Amino acid sequence: MKNVKVIIWGLGAMGTGMARMLLTKKGVDIVGGIDIGQKLGKSIYEIVGVDRGDREEVIVGTRDEVITEKSADVVLLCTDSFTAKAFDKIKFVLEKKINVITTAEQMAYPKAQEPEITKQMDEIAKANGVSVLGTGINPGLIMDLLVVIMTGCMQNVEHVLSRRVNSLSPFGPAVMEEQGIGLSVEEFNELKSNGKLAGHVGFHESINMIADAIGWKVDKIEQDMEPIVTQVDRKAPYGFAKAGDVAGVAMKGCGYVNGEKLIEMDHPQQIEPEQVGVNTGDYVIIKGTPSINMVNSPEVEGGIGTIAMVVNMIPQIINSRPGVQTMLTLPVPRAIMGDMKELIFEDCKIVK
Amino acid sequence: MKNVKVIIWGLGAMGTGMARMLLTKKGVDIVGGIDIGQKLGKSIYEIVGVDRGDREEVIVGTRDEVITEKSADVVLLCTDSFTAKAFDKIKFVLEKKINVITTAEQMAYPKAQEPEITKQMDEIAKANGVSVLGTGINPGLIMDLLVVIMTGCMQNVEHVLSRRVNSLSPFGPAVMEEQGIGLSVEEFNELKSNGKLAGHVGFHESINMIADAIGWKVDKIEQDMEPIVTQVDRKAPYGFAKAGDVAGVAMKGCGYVNGEKLIEMDHPQQIEPEQVGVNTGDYVIIKGTPSINMVNSPEVEGGIGTIAMVVNMIPQIINSRPGVQTMLTLPVPRAIMGDMKELIFEDCKIVK
Repeated sequence: MKNVKVIIWGLGAMGTGMARMLLTKKGVDIVGGIDIGQKLGKSIYEIVGVDRGDREEVIVGTRDEVITEKSADVVLLCTDSFTAKAFDKIKFVLEKKINVITTAEQMAYPKAQEPEITKQMDEIAKANGVSVLGTGINPGLIMDLLVVIMTGCMQNVEHVLSRRVNSLSPFGPAVMEEQGIGLSVEEFNELKSNGKLAGHVGFHESINMIADAIGWKVDKIEQDMEPIVTQVDRKAPYGFAKAGDVAGVAMKGCGYVNGEKLIEMDHPQQIEPEQVGVNTGDYVIIKGTPSINMVNSPEVEGGIGTIAMVVNMIPQIINSRPGVQTMLTLPVPRAIMGDMKELIFEDCKIVK
Repeated sequence: MKNVKVIIWGLGAMGTGMARMLLTKKGVDIVGGIDIGQKLGKSIYEIVGVDRGDREEVIVGTRDEVITEKSADVVLLCTDSFTAKAFDKIKFVLEKKINVITTAEQMAYPKAQEPEITKQMDEIAKANGVSVLGTGINPGLIMDLLVVIMTGCMQNVEHVLSRRVNSLSPFGPAVMEEQGIGLSVEEFNELKSNGKLAGHVGFHESINMIADAIGWKVDKIEQDMEPIVTQVDRKAPYGFAKAGDVAGVAMKGCGYVNGEKLIEMDHPQQIEPEQVGVNTGDYVIIKGTPSINMVNSPEVEGGIGTIAMVVNMIPQIINSRPGVQTMLTLPVPRAIMGDMKELIFEDCKIVK
């Protein structure tokens, strides 16, 4: 069998990270890269900072140049957060009879907020014999799939609390700005009320994924964000918050089932949490028979984790039945330490 | 669609527990029970201690009475630990065109120790259009699948330590005897050297499952058991160990990859661990990029967890492609709080 052939669309932090990870793996080749602006026409090896060695050159191109029918087994799409914005790109790839994995957070469970687009996408994928998956560290694993797998050993589930307490210190200036680090509380509240603070995208997706997995019907979802006001000065490599100002964002969400808050999401993100005695970690706390009281500490870092999840799901999406897939419909994610092409079903390989 | 139809073969602690769990669920009926000796001819409702209500009577019978072609969607087989011993029963069910889920520990990853039987079983299953799965809390989830899913967010895996520290105090006299509780160290060592101490069955299966999942080739597996000698008297409901005697068994196993111990299993089981400050829990500790340091504490109790895993995997095994399946090939386990029949693909239903 030929190596697995991958195209990466969007060569920002996520796309270049995936490229670097793929270049350490066996049985897989990057055969295309897509971006805009200054990266167009450059070698992908130059962009990701890895020596090309005796690999074939890959020059970054436009989508029309790079994506032709069956020119790869999968496209990794790292350009958007929202399903509606990613839809045209996904459609374009599916119609070229190539599978898609995307980091778009809403695509982790697209029917949660875009049921109509999801239906269309499913029809297009099936008509072309390929499949599409949205995944990442969160949504995709920590606040949803990890909850679901632990309910697998439960006879009865009464309440779910999914908590991710993470540090923003490893991130760069863009994230500092998106999350409002260093703002005064007044500035934070003004941006929030204007819808100008990004916060975390994914609670609707995670809550619906958990509920659908275990057979609960969600009546209503609520979410909110509050500033994490620091009592002491906090300094991270790319952000600073003085005492009294905003050192992070506490995102909260909940899903109501039969009028009760049965699924709660708690996701405070801040710089330098250690300075104030906050232990970062990923918590799965489920009441039921039996109860679950699980923590991974420190938390899985978002960037590394998302890159790994997307790359590691490549075999599962190639092997899957056609259509829109989710982390609920595919076998569990797993690291790839061997030859990737040995994991591919022969009848599912696109580039023969 | 008709309710999911289930037959339970083996009405000991596991089988009766599954029956009680199933009787709390929607969209599923128990249509048969199989056992030997005194239970034959009795109502399954009497055996499990649940009021029949307006359900149809189910009288415990022999396998030939109960299992006829397509008489159920799945048989839950709770009679054996070893693949070779369970094989005839599994073959009998598959040839009646019914899916099987079994608690037999070796069946969680049967090719680890019985590759020839696994091949035969796979052929029989495929020839009859049905599938078979072995699962439970361990092997099946805690020391293997939970490790695998966490590697899903890893770019590189260097070393796996899977640790389950559990209390034997909830168990009855049979387990106390199997695990050597209350023996002197000399008695323990004599029984061990005669192969008369059961200990935990499943390390070969868990190690091979993890290795195959991530693409490591295991050269060699070693396992051993040591007595846990107590410094103080320990008293559990069904077991007693005086100071200096055996309060439990410490099982250890490891898998070598390229000559190095890359997968380690650590599974101490004892009565009254709290008395000596031992915190029970399920630990997943993986070195790599990123590292994982996860604990669920206290541990998921083995009996409850195994019952739940088997029942919760019913939809997945009915919906699966024909053949021998494992927890690696099927979608993640999840609790069933809704109507079970809504989870079944129409073309996979056996009892139409």
